[in-house]
Amino acid sequence: MKKVFVIHGPNLNLLGKREPEIYGGSSLDDINERISREAEKIGIECEFFQSNIEGELVDIVQKAGGKADGIIINPAGYSHTSVALHDALKTIDIPRVEVHLSNIFAREEFRRASLTASVCTGSISGLGVEGYLLALRYISNRLVRSQ
Amino acid sequence: MKKVFVIHGPNLNLLGKREPEIYGGSSLDDINERISREAEKIGIECEFFQSNIEGELVDIVQKAGGKADGIIINPAGYSHTSVALHDALKTIDIPRVEVHLSNIFAREEFRRASLTASVCTGSISGLGVEGYLLALRYISNRLVRSQ
Amino acid sequence: MKKVFVIHGPNLNLLGKREPEIYGGSSLDDINERISREAEKIGIECEFFQSNIEGELVDIVQKAGGKADGIIINPAGYSHTSVALHDALKTIDIPRVEVHLSNIFAREEFRRASLTASVCTGSISGLGVEGYLLALRYISNRLVRSQ
Amino acid sequence: MKKVFVIHGPNLNLLGKREPEIYGGSSLDDINERISREAEKIGIECEFFQSNIEGELVDIVQKAGGKADGIIINPAGYSHTSVALHDALKTIDIPRVEVHLSNIFAREEFRRASLTASVCTGSISGLGVEGYLLALRYISNRLVRSQ
Amino acid sequence: MKKVFVIHGPNLNLLGKREPEIYGGSSLDDINERISREAEKIGIECEFFQSNIEGELVDIVQKAGGKADGIIINPAGYSHTSVALHDALKTIDIPRVEVHLSNIFAREEFRRASLTASVCTGSISGLGVEGYLLALRYISNRLVRSQ
Amino acid sequence: MKKVFVIHGPNLNLLGKREPEIYGGSSLDDINERISREAEKIGIECEFFQSNIEGELVDIVQKAGGKADGIIINPAGYSHTSVALHDALKTIDIPRVEVHLSNIFAREEFRRASLTASVCTGSISGLGVEGYLLALRYISNRLVRSQ
Amino acid sequence: MKKVFVIHGPNLNLLGKREPEIYGGSSLDDINERISREAEKIGIECEFFQSNIEGELVDIVQKAGGKADGIIINPAGYSHTSVALHDALKTIDIPRVEVHLSNIFAREEFRRASLTASVCTGSISGLGVEGYLLALRYISNRLVRSQ
Amino acid sequence: MKKVFVIHGPNLNLLGKREPEIYGGSSLDDINERISREAEKIGIECEFFQSNIEGELVDIVQKAGGKADGIIINPAGYSHTSVALHDALKTIDIPRVEVHLSNIFAREEFRRASLTASVCTGSISGLGVEGYLLALRYISNRLVRSQ
Amino acid sequence: MKKVFVIHGPNLNLLGKREPEIYGGSSLDDINERISREAEKIGIECEFFQSNIEGELVDIVQKAGGKADGIIINPAGYSHTSVALHDALKTIDIPRVEVHLSNIFAREEFRRASLTASVCTGSISGLGVEGYLLALRYISNRLVRSQ
Amino acid sequence: MKKVFVIHGPNLNLLGKREPEIYGGSSLDDINERISREAEKIGIECEFFQSNIEGELVDIVQKAGGKADGIIINPAGYSHTSVALHDALKTIDIPRVEVHLSNIFAREEFRRASLTASVCTGSISGLGVEGYLLALRYISNRLVRSQ
Amino acid sequence: MKKVFVIHGPNLNLLGKREPEIYGGSSLDDINERISREAEKIGIECEFFQSNIEGELVDIVQKAGGKADGIIINPAGYSHTSVALHDALKTIDIPRVEVHLSNIFAREEFRRASLTASVCTGSISGLGVEGYLLALRYISNRLVRSQ
Amino acid sequence: MKKVFVIHGPNLNLLGKREPEIYGGSSLDDINERISREAEKIGIECEFFQSNIEGELVDIVQKAGGKADGIIINPAGYSHTSVALHDALKTIDIPRVEVHLSNIFAREEFRRASLTASVCTGSISGLGVEGYLLALRYISNRLVRSQ
Repeated sequence: MKKVFVIHGPNLNLLGKREPEIYGGSSLDDINERISREAEKIGIECEFFQSNIEGELVDIVQKAGGKADGIIINPAGYSHTSVALHDALKTIDIPRVEVHLSNIFAREEFRRASLTASVCTGSISGLGVEGYLLALRYISNRLVRSQ
Repeated sequence: MKKVFVIHGPNLNLLGKREPEIYGGSSLDDINERISREAEKIGIECEFFQSNIEGELVDIVQKAGGKADGIIINPAGYSHTSVALHDALKTIDIPRVEVHLSNIFAREEFRRASLTASVCTGSISGLGVEGYLLALRYISNRLVRSQ
Repeated sequence: MKKVFVIHGPNLNLLGKREPEIYGGSSLDDINERISREAEKIGIECEFFQSNIEGELVDIVQKAGGKADGIIINPAGYSHTSVALHDALKTIDIPRVEVHLSNIFAREEFRRASLTASVCTGSISGLGVEGYLLALRYISNRLVRSQ
Repeated sequence: MKKVFVIHGPNLNLLGKREPEIYGGSSLDDINERISREAEKIGIECEFFQSNIEGELVDIVQKAGGKADGIIINPAGYSHTSVALHDALKTIDIPRVEVHLSNIFAREEFRRASLTASVCTGSISGLGVEGYLLALRYISNRLVRSQ
Repeated sequence: MKKVFVIHGPNLNLLGKREPEIYGGSSLDDINERISREAEKIGIECEFFQSNIEGELVDIVQKAGGKADGIIINPAGYSHTSVALHDALKTIDIPRVEVHLSNIFAREEFRRASLTASVCTGSISGLGVEGYLLALRYISNRLVRSQ
Repeated sequence: MKKVFVIHGPNLNLLGKREPEIYGGSSLDDINERISREAEKIGIECEFFQSNIEGELVDIVQKAGGKADGIIINPAGYSHTSVALHDALKTIDIPRVEVHLSNIFAREEFRRASLTASVCTGSISGLGVEGYLLALRYISNRLVRSQ
Repeated sequence: MKKVFVIHGPNLNLLGKREPEIYGGSSLDDINERISREAEKIGIECEFFQSNIEGELVDIVQKAGGKADGIIINPAGYSHTSVALHDALKTIDIPRVEVHLSNIFAREEFRRASLTASVCTGSISGLGVEGYLLALRYISNRLVRSQ
Repeated sequence: MKKVFVIHGPNLNLLGKREPEIYGGSSLDDINERISREAEKIGIECEFFQSNIEGELVDIVQKAGGKADGIIINPAGYSHTSVALHDALKTIDIPRVEVHLSNIFAREEFRRASLTASVCTGSISGLGVEGYLLALRYISNRLVRSQ
Repeated sequence: MKKVFVIHGPNLNLLGKREPEIYGGSSLDDINERISREAEKIGIECEFFQSNIEGELVDIVQKAGGKADGIIINPAGYSHTSVALHDALKTIDIPRVEVHLSNIFAREEFRRASLTASVCTGSISGLGVEGYLLALRYISNRLVRSQ
Repeated sequence: MKKVFVIHGPNLNLLGKREPEIYGGSSLDDINERISREAEKIGIECEFFQSNIEGELVDIVQKAGGKADGIIINPAGYSHTSVALHDALKTIDIPRVEVHLSNIFAREEFRRASLTASVCTGSISGLGVEGYLLALRYISNRLVRSQ
Repeated sequence: MKKVFVIHGPNLNLLGKREPEIYGGSSLDDINERISREAEKIGIECEFFQSNIEGELVDIVQKAGGKADGIIINPAGYSHTSVALHDALKTIDIPRVEVHLSNIFAREEFRRASLTASVCTGSISGLGVEGYLLALRYISNRLVRSQ
Repeated sequence: MKKVFVIHGPNLNLLGKREPEIYGGSSLDDINERISREAEKIGIECEFFQSNIEGELVDIVQKAGGKADGIIINPAGYSHTSVALHDALKTIDIPRVEVHLSNIFAREEFRRASLTASVCTGSISGLGVEGYLLALRYISNRLVRSQ
């Protein structure tokens, strides 16, 4: 069975509490559960991670390099400045999709560039929790195709 | 039955011929057909447009304002500079998703900002033709939910 | 009888529907009628144009060069980036006034510069529909004086 | 009877002498007289001010807050850098129009931005002395309408 | 017989009337005739196009992809901002030379960069009408050499 | 008895009237009285100044150089651009604290830098009227310590 | 009894050793003790934290959201670049004051902006250890007032 | 007898006290006296002015337009930002030399540009008090030559 | 007989050896011979120069001012930064064409601007060795016309 | 015996696997062993560290302050943005050399500046694993000299 | 007898021929003679140099370090970009004055900064040939004073 | 026997005299001798060059292309601006190391970028004279390895 790492960056553990008008009212657990259910349907196993620490996210991405078939990552506040995460993602050869809950093009200037998205396969932004599910579906299809 | 406008911007009529290593080998007709089939499955009707002319894209977006329940738009080269398209999209209240076949964060500097994405609901970039299908699924789900 | 071309740029055909809190509630026809009535009073004939297409606006400005005694132009979204409209307006020797319904100095960064205003006689911004009437009055006075 | 403050910024006391090819040949007194005559016609009383001192212009704008029904201001050289004038104008709730005799979009780079115009109702630039009369007419109409 | 598309961008239809001190006194017809005569001498057939509309220029460039052996293009005001024309030119594999009548390095700041020249074979600027003839000669020689 | 100059810059005379949601509802007199009472408690005499004129603020700062043991200054709109105030404050050797009622880091781009704060001992911003009292306390403690 | 979190960022554990001419000669323990004594006087309990790890600071700020009535934070080197800390502070509704021992406006260019201060209530910079005590006093007063 | 206005800008009244390692130890009176003595020798009458107020410097420059044959001006902190002084100096047709005691090219970034020098005949910087005497000599020679 | 100076800048003596995929495989001698043969045909005498030293290129351009009827110059690496060459070329009144073998618009950012091209009659870039021959032809035609 | 800390930043634990065409084929253990052997020869003891976490690198640098006689550090992705590491390195008085395996001047724009190198004694970049050995030799020589 | 090196940079050998409306009609020999006569009067010996080659100017400045008591230098086009000349001038301890014939603040953007002036004692710009004489007088006075 | 060119750029002939606190007290001859002795030990022959002239440095680099097996170059002031040296170094295929005596990351803004280092194998900066010896050792090792 194919495995996908779902990696949540800083402050995403607060989901549901933090600025619900921007990020929606579901908690991180709710979201992970929704992703799990969807994954199950399409025959994929998800492993979930969350950390507020840039370097721990680097660790997880590195681990994915050996253990996972795909990555869904929301680097949140580290998307815009982290060369370390950029470098970690660049070394991985599996499909990897960056997801942002809110539309980063519609927010503060400093959120409009993404160092990490430039080394992912692609990115989805502004589509809320649905973004994770779409990313999962994309990875699933690509894994099937490349078999 | 819900209707979605699928709007392709400049040079997308060349798909399959233009830089296939970046944009893939399917023609625009192939892509539209794939979208149609997917739409049919989930009970949505798609209408397709392509123009190389910025102002005609503005016309179509305006028309969507009255006739469509959702927009999928790939403004291609106009994404980065068109205030006119930005203004047109901003007036529309229906779900609208910007799609880019290639990963705009991984290309030339002048492709990394998107004036039009900032007034869409969200955007998908770098996931190839699949991006259109995911956008369709997102819009479909949102239309169902808001009924 | 002197003739003035009144040229409306992209999305102005949506007036009354698009962001009324910024652009007011009158439709483009309402506005043109108000301009016509005012024109009639001061003995000027107005011809009206609207296009969403940058190049068609260039065509109209060029035509004005031969047929009109003055231009009132609201290039809307093309004000900020169009070298083509800039070049067209620069070749015309008649009085030409750029009008913006909203105050461009109080809006997004990308709306604060105007490539087209730099080659008009002057500009009026933020005074709503009244801006068109004042522009008309200015042109009328100048045409009288230069007779 | 409604009262409008007409406030002239630095070096406008030199009008008629300073660079007449840019600013025209009328003196400030000529201009004020023309404005007065026009005001009389439409039943408005004008009070005139000129100062070369940024802070005195702030004083006058503040005074207008209590005593005037509208402001016509040409902040001249202070338009481009004065946060103090910006702050003063922002506190006032009456119609206020910024006027520039010359077309600021067609001049040196440092004259193209206006900190003060961003907190006025609107602005008129490049229409010479006529600009003041049009501003007056705008304010008059708005005062009538809001009665 | 080899065929070359000669594509003139916005406002070039005004040649001879517009700023003759910069662009010279010949009309576009005069220029096309001079190019035709020269082409005839060296056994090349020219087809001429002019449009003020960015997207129509994209159309013509695309058409050239299938029908022409070379392109001479003066994108005029669209040279500096058009990603759409850039993308169209990039897909074409035949020799293509950008021509500017005036010396773009000696003009306004916003004319000094050329997005379109970066995807042409090369460019000629500042040599007036002669620039077109030199471009023709270059293409002719290259076509001969590559036979 | 130690003396502290409390210097208020442009538009602060409007306090209580100007944008109360940003600057609070107390008038400048209220604030000065609160500062006076606090000063009395800790055995310091305050002298108050307000001017809308940049150069008068320079005068007062210079005077403080000879007559005061500390300065509390809110240069308001002049904080961001005044080299003259910067130069005046730099020549003074006594403790001097810049105070801003609102949080300048959370406002418009042009308010985020402070030329004057760079030559003060330190600054307090965003803590409302309390900021003045804290500044007073700081100066008082430092004067005691350095005795 | 009200509780305030006092959070020290990277390298502040070196205080007293690191560049004493800039940061003073007291150790972090000395400082925390001074803050504790002051807190005791005004009936507030302080809890102290220090970490060199950005993400751990995010953790602590999040924890404060549930357990503290106020935050005093010196994010040191993370003030200028951390979007993650910015996001964490933004979600918290209690009074929070950023403190810098040195005057950040008087130091290297890269220390003059503060991403974190923009989402605090306010900030104090350049007043040395005293800055913490003033911040405490501010929070204490505000907590009293809002009871 | 020819008359030269010697105009000193903000903070120059502090000379001798303010940063003597940069500006030297002479007071403004000493300097004016040295200039007077030199002027007397070469048959020129000097009139001296100093103000900390930008607008008063504008007033004096305007007055010089009618009464003086030359201007020596040290606009100090206003050199770098004052459009108002720039405009005043531009209207004057007599020789005018900007003098800076210190070498503005060797100081802070914000002192390296001079808006006012661009509309003077020329400038002298970094030569201390001697700079004034050289400026005087230049003006004297030019007045003689142009007789 | 008319004389044209052909001036080659730094590293062009390496042609044929240096990056042949960019600059082609011909040596500088080959190129000069091709130019000579072409010149002979159209009755023009060429004199050739090459130097790696900016100032020697200035010397040659100055000499051309007195001895030549036209200049063809490839300033190579000095095109982008040399104010000295810019100044030398500006003083010369004869036709002068800048030639670049490669397309400077398609290379590194620092090669896209040309200080020297701005003071030439025009420029040709990206057309390889042919560029020199076209430049020669242009100068020849202009010399004939102006006789 | 002198001790040198060898500190490897984020993603260097992947060496040998990550982009070997840029970083070479040796693993981090290989490299550390090579350094150890070299160190042994010249009588120096090395202690090795690697972390992906910015703050842990700060911890190690701080520890080096008390325990080591020299530092060799490759901050990798943190070189370009970490003010925290900058501050930590600045407090240390022992020789410290920054090493980069690849040539940072030849890579992406965002890798060309190094905040951390500015507070090291010096840096070596682009010389591969050899860079570490050279750094070791430098520190060794300096320690000998300063005895 | 004191000796002053007078060093003229690129293109100054063309004086009298090059753009006389900017640089005046005197040749370099005329100017040197005027300087010589003036020098003789005040008991100073001048030695003159001119070179178009940046590195030769560096040589001369270095030589001045050992042989001259003062330097007058007009680095012309090298003023704005030469780090090498900057470094040479910085090593010299004698009075050195940069002279520009034209007013560099009133010319093209790229002439407004001077890397070389920042390491001279001071500079004189815009006062024509007189500038050299004033520089001479300054150096002479300083040499006398420091005896 | 392998040969290495050691190339010193502008002002390095002054070493020992120029700013010894930055560049150390050894003369260029001392340094060259130290390098020679080291080279002898490891069986390499060094040839030394120094020039203040950018183009002569280009000549030497070009000569190295044919005659040397490695290059050690300190382009000093030309590192930051010389496209010509960049181009020369780029054509050479042998190991080439850029050396700076001082730490360029810790100096003026304009010294932090290096156009020339980007086309060297690598660079060493801030390690004083030792930097040359380390560069020699690197080249020697690489030459051995590649045999």
